[in-house]
Amino acid sequence: MPMIQAAAAQAKQSDWTSLPQSELVYMQLDTGLVVIHLSQSVAPKHVAQFSSLVKSRFYDNSSFYRVIDGFVAQAGKAEEKSDVPTLPPEFTRTIPTKSDFISVQSPAFFADEAGFINAFAAGKDNETKEEWLIHCPGALAMARGTAPNSATSDFYIVIGQAPRHLDRNMSIFGRVVYGMEHVQKIKRASLTSVVSQGGVISDKAKQTKIKWAKLGDELPNTQQLTLAVQNVAATPFQQRLQDAKSLKHEFYVYPGSSNIDVCYYQPKIKVDNI
Amino acid sequence: MPMIQAAAAQAKQSDWTSLPQSELVYMQLDTGLVVIHLSQSVAPKHVAQFSSLVKSRFYDNSSFYRVIDGFVAQAGKAEEKSDVPTLPPEFTRTIPTKSDFISVQSPAFFADEAGFINAFAAGKDNETKEEWLIHCPGALAMARGTAPNSATSDFYIVIGQAPRHLDRNMSIFGRVVYGMEHVQKIKRASLTSVVSQGGVISDKAKQTKIKWAKLGDELPNTQQLTLAVQNVAATPFQQRLQDAKSLKHEFYVYPGSSNIDVCYYQPKIKVDNI
Repeated sequence: MPMIQAAAAQAKQSDWTSLPQSELVYMQLDTGLVVIHLSQSVAPKHVAQFSSLVKSRFYDNSSFYRVIDGFVAQAGKAEEKSDVPTLPPEFTRTIPTKSDFISVQSPAFFADEAGFINAFAAGKDNETKEEWLIHCPGALAMARGTAPNSATSDFYIVIGQAPRHLDRNMSIFGRVVYGMEHVQKIKRASLTSVVSQGGVISDKAKQTKIKWAKLGDELPNTQQLTLAVQNVAATPFQQRLQDAKSLKHEFYVYPGSSNIDVCYYQPKIKVDNI
Repeated sequence: MPMIQAAAAQAKQSDWTSLPQSELVYMQLDTGLVVIHLSQSVAPKHVAQFSSLVKSRFYDNSSFYRVIDGFVAQAGKAEEKSDVPTLPPEFTRTIPTKSDFISVQSPAFFADEAGFINAFAAGKDNETKEEWLIHCPGALAMARGTAPNSATSDFYIVIGQAPRHLDRNMSIFGRVVYGMEHVQKIKRASLTSVVSQGGVISDKAKQTKIKWAKLGDELPNTQQLTLAVQNVAATPFQQRLQDAKSLKHEFYVYPGSSNIDVCYYQPKIKVDNI
């Protein structure tokens, strides 16, 4: 291949970042296959404990027992006493000396700046010098009680408009990168339960089950999906943001406010082997 | 009933506004029953045409043929030539002399002010003197081509994080008030189709069908749902917003930015006869 073509091919490749199987959790739900990409950036202890629980088959045959349409789908083994250790809060991180935070909106509406840490929507507070992951649709976080350090193993996935009041109050450690439509099929609690029982589905037969959850590198090659996420720093994604800020296409009568909601503009995912 | 109790009962009642059957469209999808509340406020001609099409059984056996997870589910009879008249754009309205817009966030992120017109999330531009309904999850709008006056009968429902770039560019005329979880079960286009065919589901067998759509007052009493929506001006809803702005509950470590996303705080719905 001539050098220029090779360079172009290389540039093209870097528009996407491959997701290592070791950072992926595959969950086979009653409703379909879901894959989660774990993020070490803000909550490494949560990733470590979650991965370890996955490997120990902790979540196999557990279920989504609290599901509120437009809010979250929460899963785990709420009712069983377990000896899983509690986790320290990892709601935010101190801005590292060389931060990989890429700003796309400043000022933002719920933070000084909004952008991405790797491919994860993130916020930044320049006064307190903190960064955190944002509760966008598909975000994965550990549930907890009133005490900030009470999280153990129950987790939730955001399934509606971003619940931004939970930002900096919960430890986010991943996001759904495949099968979000199967997450959206998870059985909801009734309106009555939402009002009187906080959205818990008391009839176990009506809970959507997690048949099994496995790390990508526990699976045979034939079951692994070849996933890649848009590189936030690369031209196509930056162009997408630019287009979003100006809305120049003739379709638009109103050209927009030039503000960006990072939860709407999350990096796209591609799957190369299906 | 003593007078004081009667007054209290009356006050309590006004926390909720009953939804007249004439403003409701019931849609029986393959995935379950969905009810839409129509809004005359900004797009009366769209409501008139949609209601008339519903009554003529136009949507019976039509289907959701373009469905992009995290964005919209679009339905109608795209492929059939039809003699349905085109609609004028009703993207915004001029602020009426006595506007029923209730502001809850000023400044907002995508508008000077955000709030509600009746129970519908709305924005306001104080310079151009316009108000409009916002593309929150569950919003119903008419699809169109590039020409602003090209809408006829195909419609979409927002199923993901609010696509705010469509505000003031599309005519919103309702929102889902019941069965949003059944909307979330509508079959999505494949990733390949999203990239190469704009999310159209070319295999008709894979499209979720609308078995029938009827106005509430076309249905026998026994099939009507008794729906009510929170009164945005009443104490419980205002208290909910106040709590959202300060996050004083001991659960919250970070008390929030005091900003409100109206799409997250849409008025709740209750059903009194199921």
